[in-house]
Amino acid sequence: MRSSFYEGERRFRIGPAPIPIPAVGEALLRVRRVGICGTDLHIFQGHLDHRIPRGGVIGHETLAEVTEAPAVSGFHAGERVVVEPLRTCGACRACRTGAAYLCYRLRVLGVEDPGGMREYWAVPTDRLLRVPATLADDEAAVIEPLAVATHDVRRAEVKAGDAVLVFGGGPIGALIAMVARHRGARVVVTEVNPFRVEMLRKLGLEVVGPEQDTARFVEQWTGGDGADIVFEVTGNPAAVRAMTDLVRVQGTISMVAIHGEPIPVDLYRFFARELTMHGSRLYSRGDWEEAIRLAATGAVTLAPLVTRRIPLESLQQGLEEALRGGPVMKVLIDLA
Amino acid sequence: MRSSFYEGERRFRIGPAPIPIPAVGEALLRVRRVGICGTDLHIFQGHLDHRIPRGGVIGHETLAEVTEAPAVSGFHAGERVVVEPLRTCGACRACRTGAAYLCYRLRVLGVEDPGGMREYWAVPTDRLLRVPATLADDEAAVIEPLAVATHDVRRAEVKAGDAVLVFGGGPIGALIAMVARHRGARVVVTEVNPFRVEMLRKLGLEVVGPEQDTARFVEQWTGGDGADIVFEVTGNPAAVRAMTDLVRVQGTISMVAIHGEPIPVDLYRFFARELTMHGSRLYSRGDWEEAIRLAATGAVTLAPLVTRRIPLESLQQGLEEALRGGPVMKVLIDLA
Repeated sequence: MRSSFYEGERRFRIGPAPIPIPAVGEALLRVRRVGICGTDLHIFQGHLDHRIPRGGVIGHETLAEVTEAPAVSGFHAGERVVVEPLRTCGACRACRTGAAYLCYRLRVLGVEDPGGMREYWAVPTDRLLRVPATLADDEAAVIEPLAVATHDVRRAEVKAGDAVLVFGGGPIGALIAMVARHRGARVVVTEVNPFRVEMLRKLGLEVVGPEQDTARFVEQWTGGDGADIVFEVTGNPAAVRAMTDLVRVQGTISMVAIHGEPIPVDLYRFFARELTMHGSRLYSRGDWEEAIRLAATGAVTLAPLVTRRIPLESLQQGLEEALRGGPVMKVLIDLA
Repeated sequence: MRSSFYEGERRFRIGPAPIPIPAVGEALLRVRRVGICGTDLHIFQGHLDHRIPRGGVIGHETLAEVTEAPAVSGFHAGERVVVEPLRTCGACRACRTGAAYLCYRLRVLGVEDPGGMREYWAVPTDRLLRVPATLADDEAAVIEPLAVATHDVRRAEVKAGDAVLVFGGGPIGALIAMVARHRGARVVVTEVNPFRVEMLRKLGLEVVGPEQDTARFVEQWTGGDGADIVFEVTGNPAAVRAMTDLVRVQGTISMVAIHGEPIPVDLYRFFARELTMHGSRLYSRGDWEEAIRLAATGAVTLAPLVTRRIPLESLQQGLEEALRGGPVMKVLIDLA
């Protein structure tokens, strides 16, 4: 079979590999789609070299078809599945308190352990979820980032009527916005990339574009109160400066972005306005189930987010293009 | 009567002033004790010159005796009272949502409006709370900072068994530690001032002193999990660096200290461990009532915190000494 391999120094190799032999409790999957994610771009740039081995296989946003599965698992050949790409220790503080996705010894399939950017993949069956027949392959491949978004919105306790400000309208920001809108919130997304601004507007989302003053907009939008909830999804220090100014008294900031370096934060504003900030990462099984439900019922529109499909052989080029930005949202590797 | 006046440039003047004439709804108080607070030290250093007028009267930690009060208020001459030193607008987002102490147009008696560092003071009767006879004047003068502590502990949702780490063992840190202990939490305070370390230990509190490694202590204390709740009460950037390292996965950081400048915060740790941080400021009426209850029942010990009483005429000197640090906890102006 064909597989990709991380070689380090901004290089991926495509080459042959033996088809994996499933261990006890594992299913063999034929991979159909893999999304390229921000984490993959971090890996590409070498930021996660302490976590991923040379020769490792990335890819954690996957849609696959079951080739063979243990009878006891209830899965059958031909079923389409998505993969919750986490291995947890079951013993640490996080695992013991119902937040296994934050396991102190977490291994992510597609980072520490091999992921889905290859034709065949052996995965424990307890990590699989069935995909409804109404969802196209491309849509189903976006369920993983949608589960991130349902998790983020749940943790931020977004409710009907809330003024929700999302910094950053990439795939995760757009999905958070759509999930929050489905909950009845009033949602505004800030975005500077003109291609993305246009796409967000086509999705019916209100956007503050690069030509607008976000502070003035929020002032008028909320009658001077500030937003109830701010999602920081850019990773840009400018958003960290703005977030404390634009949220209302006792409002909530959800830290979804990855900031590699400590960033100056206006802690006086936290004190004076009793702001709350929490980090939000990955997902629990319930977040996946909600994501599948929202996708299947059409509550969240996934198809327009997929701006390009490329073959596995174009992975290197796809990563380089994604890093350059431009007219791109979600890029999928098509292995079907 | 004698009064103090803020002159700017690190100077206070003591001089005569007419006894205030109470407006409608106000009582006339004879002030007995006023605590010197961290906010007063900020005023002294000019940090709050944008909020306090020249000639203003500071002092918001007060114990007083009612001299005269409207019959309808239910207060009588001779009763001892403490003062909730806030004026709120009643109309803004904070006032409308049950957090009037965060009023967008808040005026603090002792900052924007005249406070208690003088012999007589006219105060709206709805800002007064009676003091139980069992409490000495010195103890009652510490009810205001105790209300800060009951507020902080309530907002952080401290519960029995929690591992609570308090950065900074000044008056507020010590009071937070005692309130958290009363809730059944396991509490540790970090402090560098040897005088304070000794006092905290005499109060039965566990202290990590300047000769100890806080990270190693917390590692052993919590079996590697990290603290459930961290209170940052120092205002020191070193504590901001440490706080994200020493709190457990999905743990809580309470920002009680005033950081005048934006401070680098490890936002990646917020993301990766789903930490929560909230600001905590002032108090509601319920926090005052809890403070009086805890003081009156002896659940929290206040008398040892008062390390010195000085006359109003020594205010200037008292501020200078407090700023130098050393063998000092709470200093009271004695006007009785």
